[in-house]
Amino acid sequence: MSANADERSLAGLPPNRIEALADGIFAVAMTVLVLEVHIPDLPEGASPDALERALWALGPKLASFAVGFVILGTLWIGHHYQFHYIRRSDRPLLWVNLLFLLAICSLPFAVAILGAWGPSRVACGLYGAVLLVAGSCLLAQWIYATRGGRLTGPIDARVVSALRGRVMLGMLGYGTGLALAFVAPRASLACYAAMPLVYLLPGRIDRHVKR
Amino acid sequence: MSANADERSLAGLPPNRIEALADGIFAVAMTVLVLEVHIPDLPEGASPDALERALWALGPKLASFAVGFVILGTLWIGHHYQFHYIRRSDRPLLWVNLLFLLAICSLPFAVAILGAWGPSRVACGLYGAVLLVAGSCLLAQWIYATRGGRLTGPIDARVVSALRGRVMLGMLGYGTGLALAFVAPRASLACYAAMPLVYLLPGRIDRHVKR
Amino acid sequence: MSANADERSLAGLPPNRIEALADGIFAVAMTVLVLEVHIPDLPEGASPDALERALWALGPKLASFAVGFVILGTLWIGHHYQFHYIRRSDRPLLWVNLLFLLAICSLPFAVAILGAWGPSRVACGLYGAVLLVAGSCLLAQWIYATRGGRLTGPIDARVVSALRGRVMLGMLGYGTGLALAFVAPRASLACYAAMPLVYLLPGRIDRHVKR
Amino acid sequence: MSANADERSLAGLPPNRIEALADGIFAVAMTVLVLEVHIPDLPEGASPDALERALWALGPKLASFAVGFVILGTLWIGHHYQFHYIRRSDRPLLWVNLLFLLAICSLPFAVAILGAWGPSRVACGLYGAVLLVAGSCLLAQWIYATRGGRLTGPIDARVVSALRGRVMLGMLGYGTGLALAFVAPRASLACYAAMPLVYLLPGRIDRHVKR
Repeated sequence: MSANADERSLAGLPPNRIEALADGIFAVAMTVLVLEVHIPDLPEGASPDALERALWALGPKLASFAVGFVILGTLWIGHHYQFHYIRRSDRPLLWVNLLFLLAICSLPFAVAILGAWGPSRVACGLYGAVLLVAGSCLLAQWIYATRGGRLTGPIDARVVSALRGRVMLGMLGYGTGLALAFVAPRASLACYAAMPLVYLLPGRIDRHVKR
Repeated sequence: MSANADERSLAGLPPNRIEALADGIFAVAMTVLVLEVHIPDLPEGASPDALERALWALGPKLASFAVGFVILGTLWIGHHYQFHYIRRSDRPLLWVNLLFLLAICSLPFAVAILGAWGPSRVACGLYGAVLLVAGSCLLAQWIYATRGGRLTGPIDARVVSALRGRVMLGMLGYGTGLALAFVAPRASLACYAAMPLVYLLPGRIDRHVKR
Repeated sequence: MSANADERSLAGLPPNRIEALADGIFAVAMTVLVLEVHIPDLPEGASPDALERALWALGPKLASFAVGFVILGTLWIGHHYQFHYIRRSDRPLLWVNLLFLLAICSLPFAVAILGAWGPSRVACGLYGAVLLVAGSCLLAQWIYATRGGRLTGPIDARVVSALRGRVMLGMLGYGTGLALAFVAPRASLACYAAMPLVYLLPGRIDRHVKR
Repeated sequence: MSANADERSLAGLPPNRIEALADGIFAVAMTVLVLEVHIPDLPEGASPDALERALWALGPKLASFAVGFVILGTLWIGHHYQFHYIRRSDRPLLWVNLLFLLAICSLPFAVAILGAWGPSRVACGLYGAVLLVAGSCLLAQWIYATRGGRLTGPIDARVVSALRGRVMLGMLGYGTGLALAFVAPRASLACYAAMPLVYLLPGRIDRHVKR
C-alpha cells in the first residue's frame, strides 16, 4: 500500500496489522462468549410455560454474557482510541499488545468460570485479575508510545493525559472489584458491570478528538 | 494510513475499525450458526438409506442455519450501505454499534434455541426480539449520523430517506413476525424467512449509489 | 478512506468490505475444520505405543481436515483473483457473494459428515454439491461483473477468459466427483482431493497478472 | 483502493488479502486455544477451597494455552515483518502461505493433544513437527520473495539476512525441541516455551526497520 511507503520513511512498522489482529481477536472473543451459554435440551412437546421458565433460568448466564461483551467493548474502544494516535510499532509494542490480547482471549474463560461456579471469591478474583492485566497493558503501551512522541509523533499533551486518565479510571474500577472479590463477591460483580457505564459518558478526550 | 490524516482534520475517528470489528463478528456469527447443526453419530456400516434418512432429518436445522445466515447477510448489507456514507465516528456511534453487534452475536443463540425447542412462542419471540434490537440500532445510528450531516458530511437527502426507508421496512417485517410469535409461531418463522427476499430487490438507494 | 471517494464517483460501493467479510469467513471456516477432529481421551499413564496408535487412528480425519483446508484455499484464491479486478459492487454481487459464503460455511459441515459417516454415497454427494454451489457462484459473479466491464471497468478479454476457464475447470472436477459419488465414493473423494493440485500449477492468468 | 492501482502496474497481486486471511486465522487460532481449557462442573455450593483447588488443577492447561498463544504470537510477528517488505504476491507465495496457515490452524490441535495426553513423546513430537512446518514455510517464502527482489523490489541485503537469521534461529530451537521429544519430553516442552523469550529481545532487524 502506498501509505506504507510513507510510514516506512518515518520509523518502525505501520500498526495496521496489530489493529487487524486485535479486531479479529475481539470479534472472536465476543462471539465465543455466547457459545458458553449452553441450551438445556427440552422435549419438543414441552409446555410453553416450561420453555419460558427454562429461558428465564438462563437469565444469569445471558446477563453475564452481555456484561462480558460490553466490558470487551470498552477495552476495544480504549485500544481503538490509542491506535488512532499510535502511528508506528516496534517490538516492545508488539509484545505488550500480544499480552493484552492474551488477556482478551482469557476473558471468555473467566466468564465461563463465573457462569459455572457462581459469584464466588475465586471466580470474581480471576475476572478482576484478567481485567487488570488488560488495563495495565493499555496503560503501559500508552505511556511507552507517547513518551517523547516515540511512536505517535508530536502529540497534544492534553490528549496524552486524557487517554491516560481514562485507562487509569478503568484500572481503579477493576482493582476495586478485585479487592471486593475477597470480601463481597456480589459487590465485586456489580463493580465490574458498572464500569462500562462510566465509559458511556463522553470525556475530555472526545473534545480533543473532535477538534 | 495517510487517509487517516485527512479524516483527523475533519473531526472524530475514522470508522474503519468499526467496520473491521463488525465484519469479524459477522464472519464468526455466520460460521458459528453451522456449528449448531450437530451431526448424529451413525455406525460406519449403516446402510446408505439410513444415512440419507439421517441427512433429511437434519433438514429443518439446515434450513434454520441457512435462514439465519441470510438474515445476518441482510443486516450486514444494511450496515455496509450505512458506513459507505458514515465517514467519522464518535462515542455514541461506537456504543450503538456495540449494541448492534451484541444482537448479531445473540442471533446464533436464538437460532439454536429455535433448533432445540422447535417453533414455539418463546423461541420465535426471542428470535424476533433480537432482530428488532438489531434493526433499531441501525435505524438509530442512521438518524444520529445523518442529522445535519453530523458524521457523514453533506449528504443527499434522498440517500438519507432511501436508507431510512429500507431499515424501517425490515423493522416492520420483524415486528410483524414478533407479534405473530404469540398467536401463530409457524407464521412468525415464515415472516422472518421471507424478509431477506424483500431485500433481494434493488431499491431507491441502489439508483442513488450508482450515480 | 480517500480511496472510497474516488470509487464513489465511479458507481456502486467499493468491494473492500466484501473482501473483509470473505476473508473473515474463510479464516473461521478453515480453523473450524480442525475443531471437528475430536481427540480421544486416553489415560495419562497410557503407553507411548497406545498414544501413537491413537494418533495414527486420527489419520483419516486429519487428512480430511487438510484436504478441506486446501480446497477452501483454492476457492479463496479464486475469489482473491476475481476481486483483484472487480472494483465496484452492487446488490446482485453482494447476494451472489453471500450465497458463495454460505457454501464456504457449509464445507466444514460436509467435512464433518464425511468424518462421521465415512466415504458413503450421501457424504460424498453432499461434499460435491457444496463445492459445485461455491464454484457456480464464482462463475456467476465473474460473468456478471465482467460483462461489458460492468463492475470491473475496462478489462483485458484474455484476463476474463483465463479466469473463467479456471473456475470452469474446477466445476468440471467437482462435477465429476459428484457423479462418481453415486457409483464409487472413494474415487469421488480422490477426485476432490486432486483438484487443488491442478490449481498449484500457474496458468494463463498468472502471465497476465504479471504484466 | 487507489494503492492497488499502483501495485498492479508493477506485477502480481497486492498481498493485502494474504495479510487479512492470516490475521483472521491467527485471531481464531489464538482464541480457540482457550476453548480447549474445559471447566470442571462443580456444585454451586462447593466450598471456596474446593474451587481454588479446581482452578489450580487447571494450571497446566492454562500454562499450555498461554505458551501456545505466545508461540503463535512469535510466528505472527515473523509473518508481519516479512510482509512489511513483500509487496507483491504470486501463486507460489499464495500456496506457501496456505501451507503456513494450515500449520497455524493445526497448533491448537497439537496443544489439545498435549493437554489430553500429557507431555509424552508423541504429543511433544507432534507439537515440534507443526512448528517446524510453520518455520519452514516462513523461511521458504522469505528466500523465494527476496531472491533478486522478486516480490519485494530492491531490498537492503542486511534486512534479508537479518530476517532470515531470525527464522532460522526459531527453526533451530523447534528442531532441538523435536529431537528432545524422543528422549526427554519435558525438556522438549521447556525448549518450545523458551523460544518466544528469544524473540522478546530486539535483533538486528529492529535496527534496520527503524532507519
